[in-house]
Amino acid sequence: MTGAFPAMPRSLQNLPPKWAHFCLGIERFISDDLALDMTGKTLAVGLSGGADSTALLLCLHWLAVKNGGRVVAAHLNHRLRPEADDDARWAASLCESLGVPCVAREADVAALAASRGMGLEEAGREARYTLFADVLAQHEAHFIALGHHLDDLGEDLLLRLSRGTAWPGLSGMVGRDDGRRLLRPLLLTPKSTLTGLLTALGVSWREDATNSDPRWARNRIRSTVMPLLLQENPNFLDAVARLWRVGSADRDYWDAQTATAGTTLLDATLAGAHRALRLRLYKAALDSLGPGQALADTLFGLDRAWQDRRIGATFQFPGEKTATVTGSGVVFSPRH
Amino acid sequence: MTGAFPAMPRSLQNLPPKWAHFCLGIERFISDDLALDMTGKTLAVGLSGGADSTALLLCLHWLAVKNGGRVVAAHLNHRLRPEADDDARWAASLCESLGVPCVAREADVAALAASRGMGLEEAGREARYTLFADVLAQHEAHFIALGHHLDDLGEDLLLRLSRGTAWPGLSGMVGRDDGRRLLRPLLLTPKSTLTGLLTALGVSWREDATNSDPRWARNRIRSTVMPLLLQENPNFLDAVARLWRVGSADRDYWDAQTATAGTTLLDATLAGAHRALRLRLYKAALDSLGPGQALADTLFGLDRAWQDRRIGATFQFPGEKTATVTGSGVVFSPRH
Repeated sequence: MTGAFPAMPRSLQNLPPKWAHFCLGIERFISDDLALDMTGKTLAVGLSGGADSTALLLCLHWLAVKNGGRVVAAHLNHRLRPEADDDARWAASLCESLGVPCVAREADVAALAASRGMGLEEAGREARYTLFADVLAQHEAHFIALGHHLDDLGEDLLLRLSRGTAWPGLSGMVGRDDGRRLLRPLLLTPKSTLTGLLTALGVSWREDATNSDPRWARNRIRSTVMPLLLQENPNFLDAVARLWRVGSADRDYWDAQTATAGTTLLDATLAGAHRALRLRLYKAALDSLGPGQALADTLFGLDRAWQDRRIGATFQFPGEKTATVTGSGVVFSPRH
Repeated sequence: MTGAFPAMPRSLQNLPPKWAHFCLGIERFISDDLALDMTGKTLAVGLSGGADSTALLLCLHWLAVKNGGRVVAAHLNHRLRPEADDDARWAASLCESLGVPCVAREADVAALAASRGMGLEEAGREARYTLFADVLAQHEAHFIALGHHLDDLGEDLLLRLSRGTAWPGLSGMVGRDDGRRLLRPLLLTPKSTLTGLLTALGVSWREDATNSDPRWARNRIRSTVMPLLLQENPNFLDAVARLWRVGSADRDYWDAQTATAGTTLLDATLAGAHRALRLRLYKAALDSLGPGQALADTLFGLDRAWQDRRIGATFQFPGEKTATVTGSGVVFSPRH
């Protein structure tokens, strides 16, 4: 299969109109929903070889041609599956046929996991993000573009629901993360559209058999809960996309409302704030102290203590962070 | 089974401590989450005879004794099931053993549905709400209390998710509806706790076999999706309760932010508002024109048209409501 790519269309104009239109829709999503003007930008594409990242590379390549930008692919060989070397050759060949630079690296993810006492999934993620950081630096890229699509978003929403994530986090992964310089241009595109694009162009892709391993919650959600919701509502993925748009607007709204919150929230600030805003102020203060997701229950408990003026009451949060009600407000502290 | 009730405890003091504590927890939920002081209040309880409304009647009865309030039961005989007459006798007997007035009425729901061209479920609901309105008036009751519990709330959340309800509607049915004068004191109590109370006190209840009929989406959700989510997270119902609390705070927040919105939203108002707030302003304007749920997609489309100043652009909403972008803002109109 390696090297067996058809002659690739050189630009949007050479695509069937349906698929040129599809790429322009992705450009619009990037500009309108992700607030990024692609003109002159360099995007690095995390290319696993699955249908999602393959379609993403093609689409962003043609949009870069249109917008005077650049695309570079980043492929990590995890050395976990027998097909891994074939995947790497496949990725290099695809990039060659597009005329796109490909940064390929091997990582012994199993050894990394063993030496660091991590799970394979976590070690794989760490190795990928190390590669991404290097590619961002070497190629002066603005963002790493990832292939997450609407089916992934639906699974993410259901996983977050099952774990009790509050709002707006419940609405799913962000489309743009400026801190980690991540972009997810396909987030509202169903997977079936991506395989449709590849099939129409005669471009092959690589399947990852671990995607059906029921040891992972995400795979269980995909194979059990998702089909039931699609049975209730064949347009369920549209509902997921809608909810994500509302969640993105709300996330941005609460970020703006809490932008000036430090790690000490004064009584005057809290007293003038609605309960819904106080909840987000507490969360913003905690988030500024590092990783660790606070449960809404503990935040409500803290709020109750503040309302009751229980001075000295202290609450523990994940990441060994604490919040204490004082005589002048609520003070948040990192681990010592 | 009718008439076979044990001697009922006369007050909270006569209950096993665990269950007295449970009732006080419900009182706290009513005061803190539903913002209702029960002192001296009259509550009418919609008593079907199921475990939920039976436990609700007991609990509110003892709280009324404590708080100098009153409770009255309202039972509708839907005449749909062979056991309906037994249910009615059972309800009368339970109320007698508690010393609580019981307003019982028969409605030929099947005939009502046929004559009005409604489904049975809708006709049953209409007959119940007619009874509730009469009981509210006759007994000068402040609220109708309904037995919806945390399992119901979880199903409601999943139903809303499958149908694509946006936020905060997604978080589930409200705990207090001042317009319809409804109260749901058990909304964060799992059903198993309610059957536990009744079993501990030796109080029987009536089962409704139609609760497992797979023709209803709610029953399908209960028997298929819910068990899978409980498998992923045995504390899933806690997650549902948390999400409801966040949703209730947000609902109240957005209601306050949009309280002064009329059916004309001026450019100055919209220009000063974040997208998340504009979405709720549009929704509040539409809601003020009568029933009919707007899809977030159409609201985003309207917002895009307003941003692009597409004067004259008109959007249709359920309930035959329209919104038009004008030279000075957005104007919402009811059906003609």
